[in-house]
Order: sequence, then C-alpha cells, then structure tokens
Amino acid sequence: MQKYQLAIIVGACLFGASLFLVSAKPVAVAQAQQSTVVLNADGTMQLPTGFRKWVFVGAPLTPNALNDGKANFPEYHHVYIEQKNVDAYLKTGVFPEGTVIVKELTRVLDPKFPDGSRTEPSGRGYFNGEYNGIDLTIKDSKRFAKTNGWGFFTFGHHPLPYEKSAAEKPVSECAGCHIANVASTDMTWIQFYPLLRDKKGY
Amino acid sequence: MQKYQLAIIVGACLFGASLFLVSAKPVAVAQAQQSTVVLNADGTMQLPTGFRKWVFVGAPLTPNALNDGKANFPEYHHVYIEQKNVDAYLKTGVFPEGTVIVKELTRVLDPKFPDGSRTEPSGRGYFNGEYNGIDLTIKDSKRFAKTNGWGFFTFGHHPLPYEKSAAEKPVSECAGCHIANVASTDMTWIQFYPLLRDKKGY
Repeated sequence: MQKYQLAIIVGACLFGASLFLVSAKPVAVAQAQQSTVVLNADGTMQLPTGFRKWVFVGAPLTPNALNDGKANFPEYHHVYIEQKNVDAYLKTGVFPEGTVIVKELTRVLDPKFPDGSRTEPSGRGYFNGEYNGIDLTIKDSKRFAKTNGWGFFTFGHHPLPYEKSAAEKPVSECAGCHIANVASTDMTWIQFYPLLRDKKGY
Repeated sequence: MQKYQLAIIVGACLFGASLFLVSAKPVAVAQAQQSTVVLNADGTMQLPTGFRKWVFVGAPLTPNALNDGKANFPEYHHVYIEQKNVDAYLKTGVFPEGTVIVKELTRVLDPKFPDGSRTEPSGRGYFNGEYNGIDLTIKDSKRFAKTNGWGFFTFGHHPLPYEKSAAEKPVSECAGCHIANVASTDMTWIQFYPLLRDKKGY
C-alpha cells in the first residue's frame, strides 16, 4: 500500500513537473518576444518593437546629394525580417503569410561633402547616424489582396519617437512602386538582400 | 492492482516526458547556436558561423570611388554583435570579456557612376552586393593585453568561401588603427553604431 501511494505521489510530481516544463515553452516565448507586430481589429497596426534584433538583410543607401536633393528616402534603409520568416524563405523561396519586413531609415552621419559623405579614419564615405523613421510591409494575401498580398504602413519619417499606430498607406505612396518594380519577386526587393538573394545561409 | 500498475506506467511515462523536455533545453541550444566562435589552443580562431543572425549594429560604407580607388575596405561594412553582448553593453556601457564584433564586407552592387553608385527605382545610390570578406575582433584582456585587450583576425578579403581559420593579425594591419583612433571607446567604433551610441533600445 505504501508502494501504491508512492507511485501515485511520484506520478503526480512528475505530472506537475511535466506541466511546468510544457507551460514554460521557452522556444515559444522567444518567438513571441521576437515578434510583437499587432494588427488591430480596425485595420491599423501597432508600432512593432524589438525589430532591431531581427535578422538584418540589407542597407540600401540613396543619399539626397545623389538625387538632386529629392530622394524619397535619403537615409540608409536598414531592412530587418524575423528569423523564422527568413528561415522559411531560405527553405521554400516563399515568404509565409504574416511575414513582416521592416525598413528603418537611418540618417547619414553629418555630411561634409556635396555627395553627402564625410571623412573618417577608414576613408571617405557614409556612416550611420540617427534613426529617422519606419516603414513596414506585412504579407496577408486575403486582407491586402488589392496590393498583391502585402499591406504597407509607416510610423513616421522623422527622429524618435515614432507614431504608436498607423493606418494602411494608400497605393500611391508605397505599394504602387512595389507593384511597378518587384511584383515578380513577391513585392520584395530581394535583389538587394544578399542573405535572401545569394542563399549562402547564415 | 490494476490501478497500481497504471500509476507506475503513468509515472514512468511522465518521467520519460520530463527527461525529454529537460534534455531538449531549447533556450540553451539557441544560445549555443548564436555563438560558435572558437579560439584554438594554438591561438588561431575558427571561422565563425551564424553571425548573420546576430544583432546588426551598423553599415559604414567607404566606396573606392570616393577614395581615389584606394579604400582599404571599399565595401559596405556590415557589423554584427551577439545579442547577449549588446544587452550587456546597453546595460553597463562595457563589452564583456569574450565579446566578438564581426565586420562582414559586402560589395557595392554593380557600380555605374564614377562615385560607385547606380540608379534603382528608389533613387541613385548604393545597394548591397556580394559578400567579400570577414574581419573580426574579440575581447580578451589578458590574451590580447598588448593591443588594448582586443585581438584581430581576418578570414579573407574576397568572395565566399572564406578561410576556415585565421591567426591573429599583426598590430600594423588592424589594431594599430583602432589604437590610434578609438582607444577611448574600448577600441570600438561606437560612434557609427546607432544602437550602441544612442541607446534607444531594440
């Protein structure tokens, strides 16, 4: 009878321990921390957080000085994608539904020359200055069917703090350029992102 | 007696499940995957892997065309640091012993203009081309005391594949420039890395 009770107690303890371990789910927590992108019921999106520790894929740079002072985005375009979606793309060549691509604009550090460059010990060139805005796109083939399955949002084009929520941008401001130029690569500028373009892995 | 056996079986199953969950240790595995930097007993270092999913901190760019064709590193400098060390720096202002900073060089995509730029739908500027080399530095105040606590290694300045191991570089090739210019910021170019410089978090 003591053995019977002992077995019950051991079983209960182990069951409890199992529940604790299952409920801890460290991988799920890590994934949740990695993505805090929230689409509200009214169609607006909340400002994402934590994206600066997502996977960096590229930093195109179109300085104002090289664009008659009229570049649409005269900053570095730091582009980030969550690792799980990069993994999926590398495996399948397709971005999963829900994929978010963040473009954080970062000013060129104090330009000194007409081309926007400055001189540092490493040479004349461009260096990363102040954060200056976020645009992002999210894949939802049903919700954003009219713009090839991707919705576009901006949280401001200025220094921090950014707007806390944003409505979908009109086609003319974001999606139009993607539709015109990169419809064949699922609306994304893969050709500028070595990790996704060249598929050499991490 | 059947209940007794059932309790034993349930207990055994739960114990097994517990062991499986404990041995899986997903968090520890993730951390291990994030850092594979290995210093060999002979002082050489093994080529790191997985660094393209570390935290990106900046992308200085010093095109050859802006440096009389003689830039030391005419590529984008994609700079990555493991998250645990970025976290520590953001908290304490000091890089922990063992911190590794990777600079992966990435060519400017097919230059068309004398300044090395090209024109794309987003404007005239610079876009990320092919991977072209890795330099890294690792903090070990005792081992590298002669170069202010940091050792410098390069795994080639050319397209993939990179060298699989590397010996410490002479002071004249790497550390010298850091000693001359950034000794006061622990040998690191923090002034070009918004995440570390401006401390706004992720």
